[in-house]
Amino acid sequence: MSASTIYDVARRAGVSISTVSLAFNNPVRVTQSTLDRILAAADELSYLPKTEAVTRARRGVGRIGVMAPFTSYPSFARRLNGILRATRDLPWEIVVYDQGSAAATSPTLSTIPLTRRLDGLVIMSLPVDPKVAHRLVEQKLPTVLVDLEHPSFSSVAIADAEGGRIVAEHLHARGHTRLGCVTERKKGQPATLPQEARLDTFRSTLAGFGTPLPDSRIRRVDYGVEPARRAAHELLDLPEAPTAIFAHDDLIAVGVLKAARERGLRVPDELAVVGFDDSDVAEPLGLTTVRQPLEESGTIAVQTLLDQLSDPDRSMRHIVLRLTLVERDTT
Amino acid sequence: MSASTIYDVARRAGVSISTVSLAFNNPVRVTQSTLDRILAAADELSYLPKTEAVTRARRGVGRIGVMAPFTSYPSFARRLNGILRATRDLPWEIVVYDQGSAAATSPTLSTIPLTRRLDGLVIMSLPVDPKVAHRLVEQKLPTVLVDLEHPSFSSVAIADAEGGRIVAEHLHARGHTRLGCVTERKKGQPATLPQEARLDTFRSTLAGFGTPLPDSRIRRVDYGVEPARRAAHELLDLPEAPTAIFAHDDLIAVGVLKAARERGLRVPDELAVVGFDDSDVAEPLGLTTVRQPLEESGTIAVQTLLDQLSDPDRSMRHIVLRLTLVERDTT
Repeated sequence: MSASTIYDVARRAGVSISTVSLAFNNPVRVTQSTLDRILAAADELSYLPKTEAVTRARRGVGRIGVMAPFTSYPSFARRLNGILRATRDLPWEIVVYDQGSAAATSPTLSTIPLTRRLDGLVIMSLPVDPKVAHRLVEQKLPTVLVDLEHPSFSSVAIADAEGGRIVAEHLHARGHTRLGCVTERKKGQPATLPQEARLDTFRSTLAGFGTPLPDSRIRRVDYGVEPARRAAHELLDLPEAPTAIFAHDDLIAVGVLKAARERGLRVPDELAVVGFDDSDVAEPLGLTTVRQPLEESGTIAVQTLLDQLSDPDRSMRHIVLRLTLVERDTT
Repeated sequence: MSASTIYDVARRAGVSISTVSLAFNNPVRVTQSTLDRILAAADELSYLPKTEAVTRARRGVGRIGVMAPFTSYPSFARRLNGILRATRDLPWEIVVYDQGSAAATSPTLSTIPLTRRLDGLVIMSLPVDPKVAHRLVEQKLPTVLVDLEHPSFSSVAIADAEGGRIVAEHLHARGHTRLGCVTERKKGQPATLPQEARLDTFRSTLAGFGTPLPDSRIRRVDYGVEPARRAAHELLDLPEAPTAIFAHDDLIAVGVLKAARERGLRVPDELAVVGFDDSDVAEPLGLTTVRQPLEESGTIAVQTLLDQLSDPDRSMRHIVLRLTLVERDTT
């Protein structure tokens, strides 16, 4: 008994062979009733598409890899969602590679340029050492970086430094002249540098307004609600206590709000609080915060990659996404 | 010029060919210095492993698919993280397929049993119609279901119904006799049924304590903080207002807490509130809630799948994960 072919399936389903091919390469592009008919024919004829035919139709293996420290920082799920949304109806499979730490070189990233399991790669917040960069270029694996820059690749970044300026301008407009700041302790890793960049622009913008931020009103704490709560109490105990606190993260803002509640301070009348990220907690808490376009950075990264796949000669580009302030009840 | 072979790379790197093979199939299993040596040799010799050799060494294509409505419900990111953690050091690639809606049949799921792009599949909270189930079995694509049950497949579920009992027992032990409940409006989709199961056991457990829950103290609302806030005000306006409210979701609990704050009610003394999920907002808010083992359900699903891949004859099983109460400040 000879195996059935795509011609048999097309004949029985009453469609062209290119429609059968499309049904297996990109089923969401075929109407449900046609898909049902093709699958019924395939089931009856015990037809299996040839794997090579499937991938040849795609001129590649049909897969894009996404590498990030997913399980270490929940924000990467939001970037991944941006990628999934942008590719949902396209004939691409998304392969996710979790890298435990953003600090270490990834063995998977070292070998992936050579294994030809992917047609393209998105690398998020992971160091790309020169040898790996060279290998990616040599093996022509189109790659887009997120939150990293490298002359050989296109990249997408969020304009982190802007955050401090935006918050300073907002609090200045609200009439605050004595500002405070609670941020995450700098651990000397590149991953924590965005926070220092935010603090720098916060300070310089305030200085421009003639309301400088002295070191005494800055606290650097370990990450978490409790250290932030204690730091806020310290700031509020100062003789020149701040009337507004910029928390470099929504969770730090939660700790600051807790301290305000414990002291019976009315928010925002007696203390204004601004967070950063617009994470899940911000809206429920009514927290004014700076929104990071995380989903969007994923979407733009994968769209940049797809553009490059369809035109390998296009120039490399670096795309910077701006931040926006989300005003709620705490300012 | 003939292309270099795995033997050339092994010789130059001073390792066995099986080590070279391992370096490309599962790089995290090779020490960094050996990996560096092999990659340096591969770079110098312009060696590329044969794709077939890579996959043959794995006795399959080396990929596991995970299908879920990722972008519709953020909780699926937690399940995916459980899968990524469990497979991080294993030679498997994880391919994610986002399905927009949990209600509709997925075209990708219809065709995936035939395309042989995967060695195994995890399906989360998506309907598996009989034809697809039949095709998965016929084509021997090992599959594990999450939050679904089917006689042909192993599955992992969370003991949702237990939630109501746990909450009722907790509030009873705290001395509450007038309970209220705010839950999500039932839309007739299977996806919302867990909430009704929780409500059923909440009611029956309370009835057993002699403190029945009348319909007047149950509100079914659209999903969100604002509808929950309004419903809580309605309950608190009742002549026999509840002293404790069970919110069937942490975000609904946020709305209830907001109403309490607006009325100046002290939590938990004048009003106790329990949420559900132990989502990101719960800890920052000090919310007592029922923890769903979401990461764990992903981990167990993929481990069950891997067991099945290594022993296709093992019996199907249905694994139910129990819920736990996380006591914080709101009860």
